[in-house]
Amino acid sequence: MNQSIPNTLNPDYKQAVLDSMKKNYFMQHLGLKPVNIEPGKVEAELELMQHHLQQNGYVHGGITSAISDIVMGFAAWTLVGKGEGTVTSDLKVAYLRPGIGKHVKAQGTVIKTGRNLHYCEASIFCLNESGDETLIARAYATMCTVRHKK
Amino acid sequence: MNQSIPNTLNPDYKQAVLDSMKKNYFMQHLGLKPVNIEPGKVEAELELMQHHLQQNGYVHGGITSAISDIVMGFAAWTLVGKGEGTVTSDLKVAYLRPGIGKHVKAQGTVIKTGRNLHYCEASIFCLNESGDETLIARAYATMCTVRHKK
Amino acid sequence: MNQSIPNTLNPDYKQAVLDSMKKNYFMQHLGLKPVNIEPGKVEAELELMQHHLQQNGYVHGGITSAISDIVMGFAAWTLVGKGEGTVTSDLKVAYLRPGIGKHVKAQGTVIKTGRNLHYCEASIFCLNESGDETLIARAYATMCTVRHKK
Amino acid sequence: MNQSIPNTLNPDYKQAVLDSMKKNYFMQHLGLKPVNIEPGKVEAELELMQHHLQQNGYVHGGITSAISDIVMGFAAWTLVGKGEGTVTSDLKVAYLRPGIGKHVKAQGTVIKTGRNLHYCEASIFCLNESGDETLIARAYATMCTVRHKK
Repeated sequence: MNQSIPNTLNPDYKQAVLDSMKKNYFMQHLGLKPVNIEPGKVEAELELMQHHLQQNGYVHGGITSAISDIVMGFAAWTLVGKGEGTVTSDLKVAYLRPGIGKHVKAQGTVIKTGRNLHYCEASIFCLNESGDETLIARAYATMCTVRHKK
Repeated sequence: MNQSIPNTLNPDYKQAVLDSMKKNYFMQHLGLKPVNIEPGKVEAELELMQHHLQQNGYVHGGITSAISDIVMGFAAWTLVGKGEGTVTSDLKVAYLRPGIGKHVKAQGTVIKTGRNLHYCEASIFCLNESGDETLIARAYATMCTVRHKK
Repeated sequence: MNQSIPNTLNPDYKQAVLDSMKKNYFMQHLGLKPVNIEPGKVEAELELMQHHLQQNGYVHGGITSAISDIVMGFAAWTLVGKGEGTVTSDLKVAYLRPGIGKHVKAQGTVIKTGRNLHYCEASIFCLNESGDETLIARAYATMCTVRHKK
Repeated sequence: MNQSIPNTLNPDYKQAVLDSMKKNYFMQHLGLKPVNIEPGKVEAELELMQHHLQQNGYVHGGITSAISDIVMGFAAWTLVGKGEGTVTSDLKVAYLRPGIGKHVKAQGTVIKTGRNLHYCEASIFCLNESGDETLIARAYATMCTVRHKK
């Protein structure tokens, strides 16, 4: 499905993403941890705690959407130039199954990059104690390049 | 734009929504407070704190999507029968402007209700110290009725 | 819901839109006719024929999505500069009710315009012989400015 | 990305889909031809003609959305019971690249099926005279089962 992801414009893309993640208050507050960063792709994990859940004990839809936004936003960030960043234009989440488990794992991928717009897709999984994965959501986003941001 | 929202199926819809909100761990953790609940419509407010922000000091896109999900989910919940609830099938957020301010206010509305599916729209505003509102996002969701849930 | 639609950048926006519509082969082939064009808003109508329907005699979902795309794309086109145009980045349609009737009427509106991106919403109605309107779909799109297009 | 597509509920799923396609006036009018039908997956092709294009000679966004709707709707139709069908609840199209070529090819896949809702994804390609494929759009839909339809 991916075609021709160009090389990143920033050789230090990994450090740029990690620096921005450190300053991302909400991501830190959530407890979401990056586990893989490569050009056009970011993977992150969250250990589930009670405050991530809704009234039936499932992962809250707002947690799923927030994590989707983060992994796709940073997947696009790996491709932009030094000193540039990304903001979300449009985010969609398809909730496939109830989120039950110990961990959430999310993979965001850029499927088409451009000068201003980056189209992304993400898969969100729940992992139980044995590490078995269930796909709980698919997400889709358009990210915009932001220039001259510190 | 709204046409023929039927009467709610549950005369105690307000209490049902408030009870479910109380048990919604993530909503409590966020600090989102309901300010109006009527059939097919829910309004809520959030006092912004640093952990709701991203690296540039704007409201995090994940906060916006989470709040959108909550006000639309509970707007649909006002219409379902006693003992029933709703889960999100599909959520989309259009991020129109950076979220800067002291408070976020969100209004979720059901634009078409049915036996199983409820189509919703939401407007998300940021309020500055003077109370001036800026529309920062529009959101759209399909909510599903869940039967026999406690 | 609309806030601060700026004045169009092109005083001849109406002629620009009509010229582009004339060259839009698919729109002509569909038989979709503009009935109102103003800055940030386009309304169009279609007389329904059998080839616009699906197997149950309802308006085909593809007709609804195509018309949504057209009225939102041209609503954005009313706002861009002379010699510029728009292309669709992202289109979403929520199908609320089966489309039954003699005519389809669609209204596309820009809810936020910018240098490159224009966020739009649309309402699609079916009209019966007596002219009674039913809202059959809501649609949402992000349109991009295209520069230096003939 | 696909997990556990259940067997179709209708052993004659292929004939059911072909019968419904034959009665689908808009699909016939478009000229879209099925080239592969299997449980949870439908592929179709369209020979491009001038009336499928917009003002710059690219495939019209409405054609792309219509084809997306059709291949995903019938992908879901392969899985439902005898005498049942599907209607679109929600359709989203991400337009990745301008559509230039001789043919359009579309693949719709069900990524999660259920009693009432079927989540689908699609890839839309343009093929040039040499048969080289370019991914021009990705599309996402929720399809609903319709019971007791002829």
